[in-house]
Amino acid sequence: MQVAIPLYPRFTALDAVGPYTVMAFTPGWTVTFVGAETGPVLDDKGGLSLVAAATYADLPRPDVIVVPGGPGTLQAVFDEPLLNWVREAHEHTRWTTSVCSGSFVLGAAGLLKGRDATTHWGWLEQLSGVGARPVGERVVTDGRIVTAAGVSAGIDMALSLVGEAAGETTAQTVQLAIEYAPEPPFQAGTPKTAPPELAEPALGLIDFE
Amino acid sequence: MQVAIPLYPRFTALDAVGPYTVMAFTPGWTVTFVGAETGPVLDDKGGLSLVAAATYADLPRPDVIVVPGGPGTLQAVFDEPLLNWVREAHEHTRWTTSVCSGSFVLGAAGLLKGRDATTHWGWLEQLSGVGARPVGERVVTDGRIVTAAGVSAGIDMALSLVGEAAGETTAQTVQLAIEYAPEPPFQAGTPKTAPPELAEPALGLIDFE
Repeated sequence: MQVAIPLYPRFTALDAVGPYTVMAFTPGWTVTFVGAETGPVLDDKGGLSLVAAATYADLPRPDVIVVPGGPGTLQAVFDEPLLNWVREAHEHTRWTTSVCSGSFVLGAAGLLKGRDATTHWGWLEQLSGVGARPVGERVVTDGRIVTAAGVSAGIDMALSLVGEAAGETTAQTVQLAIEYAPEPPFQAGTPKTAPPELAEPALGLIDFE
Repeated sequence: MQVAIPLYPRFTALDAVGPYTVMAFTPGWTVTFVGAETGPVLDDKGGLSLVAAATYADLPRPDVIVVPGGPGTLQAVFDEPLLNWVREAHEHTRWTTSVCSGSFVLGAAGLLKGRDATTHWGWLEQLSGVGARPVGERVVTDGRIVTAAGVSAGIDMALSLVGEAAGETTAQTVQLAIEYAPEPPFQAGTPKTAPPELAEPALGLIDFE
């Protein structure tokens, strides 16, 4: 199974590295970071550069695409080389997926029209602007399109996909290898459980410019 | 707050990027990847390179150190420049921390003697070899030394530290921003909950060589 994760400036690191880690731990799966050019791509917080090891042209037909989110999606939705690659690669994927605001890239590529999809809670309703039906769940599957909620939700999505493609036993083995038995010290991970006054400052931590 | 995450060849990506994302989202916190030299460092699965933006010499006195784990720790425990930096920086840190097998680097630097510590479930008992008292919990605090269990546990550790240093409200705001409300599709994240026959194949997914 060949997975491609496109990088664009000001992506959010965990959006990409959560699914990467789950999928790269899966026997027989290869995960490649791709970009318009090879080389380092800087994240949203300016502290991390991930290296794109291949160009879009190098990987025209991955089995799985995972588009990460981040404040850079505001520019990525107008990035024609990225959108063209997503659109063309999607013709042949088993799954075309996104994490967080990465779903807006799928939307800009025209892939979400009339489809159920999700994204970060902060702009879920805005998904209707690309023709999707916003669904407030952590992982949303509509045919070959799978979208995950904000940032950390990509880990859950990736484990689900590994379970479907490689079987539950393999997915559980990967889960055990990465000791994914979360114990968040607080219960503020969604607007449903967080103190309501935190919503605005939480969105303020996302550096749109 | 200045956080330094040392990179060494064949680290595990999520060990480093989980805490990075939590801490880099925290207002006033700066996270820097450091290495013996600046430049890309390849992870354990060979699919991801993170760029060390600074050298050990550039960051002698971070407030927090987070040492990631990975199969490369087998070599890192003999990496004198890394160990010297950890040992000397530790004199001045607020917290010296590790994720997964990163605790063996702290141990090799002589920091775990007589201390409670944890690591990946697969080699927890081996921590006694560096003089530590192995504790089978997700995050273990002993004074200024904080160690986390395998791979994904670094996210929980980082949220706890942010809560202590910046307050629970800030930590919850970060948690909400990264939508950290985990919904693992399976419950196999620890040996306590996983089918027992998965332990050996799970350890087999970790590419010691």
